[in-house]
Amino acid sequence: MTALTLHEDPCSGNCYKIRLTAALLGVPLALKRYDITRGETRTPEFLSQVNANGRIPVLQIGEGEQARFLPESNAACWYLAHGSALIPEDRFQQADMLRWMFFEQYSHEPNIATLRFWLSILGEAQLSEEQRRLVPGKRAGGEAALALMDAHLAARAFFGGDAPSLADIALFAYTHVAGEGGFALADHRHVAAWLARVRALPGFVPMD
Amino acid sequence: MTALTLHEDPCSGNCYKIRLTAALLGVPLALKRYDITRGETRTPEFLSQVNANGRIPVLQIGEGEQARFLPESNAACWYLAHGSALIPEDRFQQADMLRWMFFEQYSHEPNIATLRFWLSILGEAQLSEEQRRLVPGKRAGGEAALALMDAHLAARAFFGGDAPSLADIALFAYTHVAGEGGFALADHRHVAAWLARVRALPGFVPMD
Repeated sequence: MTALTLHEDPCSGNCYKIRLTAALLGVPLALKRYDITRGETRTPEFLSQVNANGRIPVLQIGEGEQARFLPESNAACWYLAHGSALIPEDRFQQADMLRWMFFEQYSHEPNIATLRFWLSILGEAQLSEEQRRLVPGKRAGGEAALALMDAHLAARAFFGGDAPSLADIALFAYTHVAGEGGFALADHRHVAAWLARVRALPGFVPMD
Repeated sequence: MTALTLHEDPCSGNCYKIRLTAALLGVPLALKRYDITRGETRTPEFLSQVNANGRIPVLQIGEGEQARFLPESNAACWYLAHGSALIPEDRFQQADMLRWMFFEQYSHEPNIATLRFWLSILGEAQLSEEQRRLVPGKRAGGEAALALMDAHLAARAFFGGDAPSLADIALFAYTHVAGEGGFALADHRHVAAWLARVRALPGFVPMD
């Protein structure tokens, strides 16, 4: 099998999505770790060899001159889960799974993950004036995302219905640590019950 | 064939992606139009029947009680292009196409589409203090996205290589009107050449 290497920072939920997908599928993944708070993904080597966008995660497929690099967490999960039960075959269900994964990147991550990074990883004292001004908007956006998820999960075990898919993995990553961004998960009881169902999946691994 | 209806605002690039995908595939699409600047997607009817997220586009599949609703522009394009040449079959190429579609929603649309909306649709005089403060960051983010695209397209006709895919449609939508957000497309000559290649595709339709 082709060697797979994840270029990651262990505190990043976007990286964790890929580790969780691999764990649920039983796929081995080598890890190469970087500290984003020290600029380790902005070095000339990283930009020229791994990702010109200067971001992690990047999934490396193969080694040496044959290596190919796949940025964007949800695209890396898609690659790993190809042909597995984590991607439904039905045309509507597959598109609807991607719908939740695009929602995650557009409406959830920029609010919930960013507040977690600012408040728990950088630390509130380190925030710039501009970052402080953005907090209320991100708080409102994150609450709206959680409310939408809660309403959807009121009638379903997982985002796609009865079975887990990549949509659950993508949304679990930053939702289960939303408390670190100041969000009260207890206010969203269907979300809280769904988090427990994801944690109970065979092969589940915690974030770190 | 199941009836397809696009709930859209004609000035939205996210809606145009879906119309362009349908046109390139020769798939008929009924249109139901809303004016987002007048709150027409925040009415109780829209929220309860079409999209609880209050956003367009939404692709409606079927009619009456059988209707299903698919929000998120790139997920709707995926549904339409199912089984077509606009989605490569190769495992890596398919994931890499999604990589550019997630990039579009995370790093491109929030910067380039938002500045176009603020500067050309709302109008600069209508912006709040907070919006004005966000302009420089969005300008820098949009320029970085265009520079990354330009470097990638220096060696390729389309994002995936020789053939067009949904990645090109997703990125074309707001890139070709980036000038309305104050971006100078002439500074990115590989992007400009790619825009011409997309416009030359058989079945291409302009935005409006």
